[in-house]
Amino acid sequence: MDITNLMTPAFLVDLPKLKSNIRAMKERARTHGVHLRPHVKTHKTAEIARLQLPNEASGITVSTLAEASFYQKAGFDDITYAFPITPNKLNQAAELTGRLKHFHILLDQFETATAVADYGRDNNVCFSVFLKVDCGYHRAGVDPCAPESVLLAEQMQASKHIRFRGILTHAGHSYHCRNREEIIGVAQQERDVMTEFAERLKQNGIACQTVSVGSTPTAVHAPGWQGVSEIRPGNFAFFDKFQADIGSCSLEEAAATVLTTVVAHYPQHNQMLIDAGALALSKDPGAAHLDEKIVYGTVPGNPLLKIFSISQEHGLITSRAPIAFENFPVGSLLQIIPNHSCLTAALFDKYHVVEGNQVVDEWRPMRGW
Amino acid sequence: MDITNLMTPAFLVDLPKLKSNIRAMKERARTHGVHLRPHVKTHKTAEIARLQLPNEASGITVSTLAEASFYQKAGFDDITYAFPITPNKLNQAAELTGRLKHFHILLDQFETATAVADYGRDNNVCFSVFLKVDCGYHRAGVDPCAPESVLLAEQMQASKHIRFRGILTHAGHSYHCRNREEIIGVAQQERDVMTEFAERLKQNGIACQTVSVGSTPTAVHAPGWQGVSEIRPGNFAFFDKFQADIGSCSLEEAAATVLTTVVAHYPQHNQMLIDAGALALSKDPGAAHLDEKIVYGTVPGNPLLKIFSISQEHGLITSRAPIAFENFPVGSLLQIIPNHSCLTAALFDKYHVVEGNQVVDEWRPMRGW
Repeated sequence: MDITNLMTPAFLVDLPKLKSNIRAMKERARTHGVHLRPHVKTHKTAEIARLQLPNEASGITVSTLAEASFYQKAGFDDITYAFPITPNKLNQAAELTGRLKHFHILLDQFETATAVADYGRDNNVCFSVFLKVDCGYHRAGVDPCAPESVLLAEQMQASKHIRFRGILTHAGHSYHCRNREEIIGVAQQERDVMTEFAERLKQNGIACQTVSVGSTPTAVHAPGWQGVSEIRPGNFAFFDKFQADIGSCSLEEAAATVLTTVVAHYPQHNQMLIDAGALALSKDPGAAHLDEKIVYGTVPGNPLLKIFSISQEHGLITSRAPIAFENFPVGSLLQIIPNHSCLTAALFDKYHVVEGNQVVDEWRPMRGW
Repeated sequence: MDITNLMTPAFLVDLPKLKSNIRAMKERARTHGVHLRPHVKTHKTAEIARLQLPNEASGITVSTLAEASFYQKAGFDDITYAFPITPNKLNQAAELTGRLKHFHILLDQFETATAVADYGRDNNVCFSVFLKVDCGYHRAGVDPCAPESVLLAEQMQASKHIRFRGILTHAGHSYHCRNREEIIGVAQQERDVMTEFAERLKQNGIACQTVSVGSTPTAVHAPGWQGVSEIRPGNFAFFDKFQADIGSCSLEEAAATVLTTVVAHYPQHNQMLIDAGALALSKDPGAAHLDEKIVYGTVPGNPLLKIFSISQEHGLITSRAPIAFENFPVGSLLQIIPNHSCLTAALFDKYHVVEGNQVVDEWRPMRGW
């Protein structure tokens, strides 16, 4: 089937680009001798996760317990739930611990460590737990320089119901970078902070089986990962305009696009209306630190077209130059590379898998919590 | 069941507030002698649409053909699809025209009018069609002052396969207002533009069976609707922080909230982590024209708490004052009024209907296209 037969808006996954992005990341990990544990939150499909696994025994990373449950049912048996656990989620975490060969959770609070240990004692469960570390992003994680962080690791290690798995971080501040050089700087910081903290723990008698890092920008550009055991990038499968803007990829490598129809021409305002709005693109502003004029994605091959305004179902395109409306007839199709593929993908019930203009498959992502 | 038993993040609908918001809008419409055709895109549930109908014979407004199909199956028989039609959607529109007692589409392009008429001729369908008018928002619609706009109405009227239904507008620029007075100004403009254009069409021998306006801010504050036959507000069922900020409602009237768990305290950054991120709240920046510091919703009763950063599953709260962490223990629950309830609701597979802290029902919205 040709994409011109699809109802718009639709989410397209370019299969050759997807495979190429995945191959490149596997190759990077192999070259640098680090294990790849892909974050599947970007796509939430079994199909792409299977393509991402370096080998049968490899694990994945998820962002919600519902994802963990979905992937467990799909046959995956080694999952890290990379969001700090809370007491109200321990029932589900215990269930997954029972069902999976390996299920890892993480925490960064003393109260949570106590709650996990108490739950484990009361329910006869032993949880595999990471200590979440803040390597400079300041979103979550313990301060690796604070003495309390070692105390928390000690408290975890002391519990019979916690198997201390190691330390885990996410260098999300790599998204604030402006280019490859800055990303390399963050990647080095990510590695250094984690290996130094692992060393400090070791001096205190605490062994880290796993030192886990990961963000797509740092995974793409890190010069090396000595002392790190695994990386957890996710976005690299699709990439997007944000990653291209900060230098993680080229726009040509973006494997996910939103297919939309040109609905109307308004020459008096130099505008075109499309049927991809906030529910098809997401309101993610993209790399706003690089350009204060926010646009909601880009039209490949037409860099002058700016999607400058989106409401629920409406998208408005303008241009610095007068739009050549004859090139975009009413009813014709456009493909948009979204700002942030993770948030855009989450808005769709199905992905149309394409090779060129041919739809070759349809994949169904999971959603919810 | 108490809300403390819900998995977070969760979407809560406060039933008494919902009913009160709906009652008030019905009352306004009745008082002013205008028909209420609620826009159901805000919630996309059959349950709330039924509560919104002024009477059994009333119609609804939808934003996608998938919504139209969902509501047709749920027993609704009078639907306006309030997004300009495109040629690739005429098959579905023809099907709905056949199945529903009343199904109205709209357009604002000469090419589209030709495509609709041609499709109707080739497939023996007569479409009920509105001419979409731009009353000052400049998102979609014909310029009511341009002579071509009358010509387009004439072209529509001339086709045997188009039943010219009337004119329709959306005063979306009311969302740029700062207070009640400015909204009243936009409401007057919305009414004046439409009644004057209807009069011009009449002078040209074109009768408007329906003059349709609508946006929640103008529906709440319009001094009257003389010459207008129907209003199509949607957001008023839930309201949200945006509507409260521009003066359409009070924060106390917001009927939809996101329930979230306090995950972690970071006193060193005066921050708290919650499990409601961009996939639970949406990245809608809210009324950014009123405050350049973007926050992603508000915590009722705690106006100093600012949700200043959200990523896929993480939300970060800070405050101008030092956070009283003891009031928000790790594992405790918070309710957030989202910036834009339409975009937030669309992220959830189910709504938990609550009265106080008790969950009394569960509603399933439709989604997709």
